[in-house]
Amino acid sequence: MRFDTIWRGARLATLDPARQGIGIVERGAVAAREGRIVFAGPESELPPGADATERVDVEGRWITPGLIDCHTHLVHAGNRAHEFELRLAGASYEEIARAGGGIASTVRATRLAGEDELVRTALPRLDALIAEGVTTLEVKSGYGLERASELRMLQAAGRLGSERAARIRKTYLGAHAWPPGETDRSAYLDEVCETVTELGGSGLADAVDAFCEGIAFSPEEVARVFEAARAAGLPVKLHADQLSDLGGAALAARYGALSADHLEYTSEGGAAAMAEAGTVAVLLPGAFYFIRETKLPPVEAFRRHGVPIAVATDCNPGTSPLTSLLLAMNMAATLFRLTVEEIVAGVTREAARALGMADEVGTLTEGKWCDLAIWEVERPAELVYRMGFNPLWRRVFAGRTDQP
Amino acid sequence: MRFDTIWRGARLATLDPARQGIGIVERGAVAAREGRIVFAGPESELPPGADATERVDVEGRWITPGLIDCHTHLVHAGNRAHEFELRLAGASYEEIARAGGGIASTVRATRLAGEDELVRTALPRLDALIAEGVTTLEVKSGYGLERASELRMLQAAGRLGSERAARIRKTYLGAHAWPPGETDRSAYLDEVCETVTELGGSGLADAVDAFCEGIAFSPEEVARVFEAARAAGLPVKLHADQLSDLGGAALAARYGALSADHLEYTSEGGAAAMAEAGTVAVLLPGAFYFIRETKLPPVEAFRRHGVPIAVATDCNPGTSPLTSLLLAMNMAATLFRLTVEEIVAGVTREAARALGMADEVGTLTEGKWCDLAIWEVERPAELVYRMGFNPLWRRVFAGRTDQP
Ligand SMILES: [Zn+2]
Ligand SMILES: [Zn+2]
Repeated sequence: MRFDTIWRGARLATLDPARQGIGIVERGAVAAREGRIVFAGPESELPPGADATERVDVEGRWITPGLIDCHTHLVHAGNRAHEFELRLAGASYEEIARAGGGIASTVRATRLAGEDELVRTALPRLDALIAEGVTTLEVKSGYGLERASELRMLQAAGRLGSERAARIRKTYLGAHAWPPGETDRSAYLDEVCETVTELGGSGLADAVDAFCEGIAFSPEEVARVFEAARAAGLPVKLHADQLSDLGGAALAARYGALSADHLEYTSEGGAAAMAEAGTVAVLLPGAFYFIRETKLPPVEAFRRHGVPIAVATDCNPGTSPLTSLLLAMNMAATLFRLTVEEIVAGVTREAARALGMADEVGTLTEGKWCDLAIWEVERPAELVYRMGFNPLWRRVFAGRTDQP
Repeated sequence: MRFDTIWRGARLATLDPARQGIGIVERGAVAAREGRIVFAGPESELPPGADATERVDVEGRWITPGLIDCHTHLVHAGNRAHEFELRLAGASYEEIARAGGGIASTVRATRLAGEDELVRTALPRLDALIAEGVTTLEVKSGYGLERASELRMLQAAGRLGSERAARIRKTYLGAHAWPPGETDRSAYLDEVCETVTELGGSGLADAVDAFCEGIAFSPEEVARVFEAARAAGLPVKLHADQLSDLGGAALAARYGALSADHLEYTSEGGAAAMAEAGTVAVLLPGAFYFIRETKLPPVEAFRRHGVPIAVATDCNPGTSPLTSLLLAMNMAATLFRLTVEEIVAGVTREAARALGMADEVGTLTEGKWCDLAIWEVERPAELVYRMGFNPLWRRVFAGRTDQP
């Protein structure tokens, strides 16, 4: 049998659900043809006479699926470093808001930025993720808060996937915040629902998201957006229970959401509903850390009910200016006490599920895209344990190895 | 006047104490001759007719002094990732110790490692620091806990400075922990004091450090080590008040220590004594984060008494596997609420002081080594605000720019 590439001499974390834990195979091999995985398993089980155009001996290094960052706000303009500085110097949130800071400053800058500028400023952040082995990521809109700017953000997000070797999932998040100065809320909510309808089948968005919180959208308002998404045939996700328990997790589950994200204040009942619906819990320890939250997400309840758990950066300028998925993984361990296996699954197999991409990426199994991260580590735990260290040896996207 | 190199078009954070705050100069220039800074200030004040063999226009980028990591345990063997994994899976400290984990495992591996292996395994960690603009760092011994292994660690630390373009300060930390299985404590303490005596004037160590804590050395035992250091003409530093208040800060001050480090449990009196002695408070937020400490160091007391503050990684395998000084800077802001100016000074000017190198490095002023970090940022606050992003444009060591 002839392959394009065979990687031999590997230790694999396949994440294959048919194997235990993270699906470890010692003395493993992966083979690719036309960008897809056609074999992943023990080297000894390679088809007899297997040969390939390109043969790579990875000399005992570990191979995982390419990493997946399933929650980012990577596209945005402006810079909130000065606001951070003012806050450290003692300025209150009110003083910063009066000085034009807060989300309003990002919205202002994003509305003024053309599509090219949105792409150009997002690329260094994308490159930081790619350098750590990320091959798939989600990018949300939500800093335009008016139809044209939101669509421009989605277009810019899509462009990232042609500028770099990365799969981009685009999520419409018009219901991220109320537009600054907006007094007619129901008019904006109508606009969001109309935009959702327009996006259905357009290919411009892969999912619809909302922020359900006292300072953002009420459960009833979110339900209207989700109804529009259902009618438009778009799957939903939800920023839920980050600062208080408004029943966001259960609301997400009721609409069969791909994921509910943040979840610090989620109740036992919310966890049970998510498990029932198969909704993934996307934990975002970067935001927890950056805003100095103290309420921990109910990890034990998620485990008890069997809720799938993913981990992401939440890269955004206001509450998580984080462009390292490896660091998010360390935070998930250090701050949330997830296990190494949960975390490795949470940035591969479960992150794929949170994006509705479980058939395409996230495991080393036949038929998936051959997106690989090859690591200079002795065991997968090192990916979680270290802080500010990048042990990536090579990244492979659709069967092609990045030039080192 | 003829220089080797002039950097023009820069914004400078000079850290010059003669200027306010972090000594900002807009439209600045730096000139070097024979590895030293011969001019740093407003471009308009460059000597008339100033020219240089190499002229660099940095196009509005920021220049800071090369960063200084003034507290690391960079040299060590072994790997504690598995222990981290076991702890996340619920193993107790006792179970891990019984399984051969904890500091004893690092000591065992370090004793077995030759000097070459110690250098080889430290280099990737050093390279991670250098990639972020670090030009000077301290490296401690303390995982040998017997004379020969401790000296080998110091020798390996020194070798790092010939393998890479970085200034290395070597600190003898024989009093880091009691040797595993040691029953005759006074014999080991004698050995430490004799080693200190031997190190005086040898060039093998630049300073002497100890860990003053219930689980380590008592204040009386530390005082014996410090007396030996005084007699040997070696300055001292102290791991003080990390887990409890044993009066470590005041003890360090009494011996005119260059720095006292950690300091979560330091009292008001300890802070006052440090200010009086000019002892630098070296804060290590990576360890605070990693061990999930909740007691904050008394930053307000340090400010009130005028204690100089530095920030470092504490890179070590047990409590701070951190190889990013930029991330330590973010943690110093996010977790300890230091201001941007305190943090930038804390990894440059004050870190130099903590190493007894204030005459050599740490500011952009005439006569210092021309060690520069040139940053692709709009303001210094960005160095602190972002997480897991490296905006270094170029690093300059002794006047020479690293090959990008
Ligand atoms: Zn978000
Ligand atoms: Zn230390």
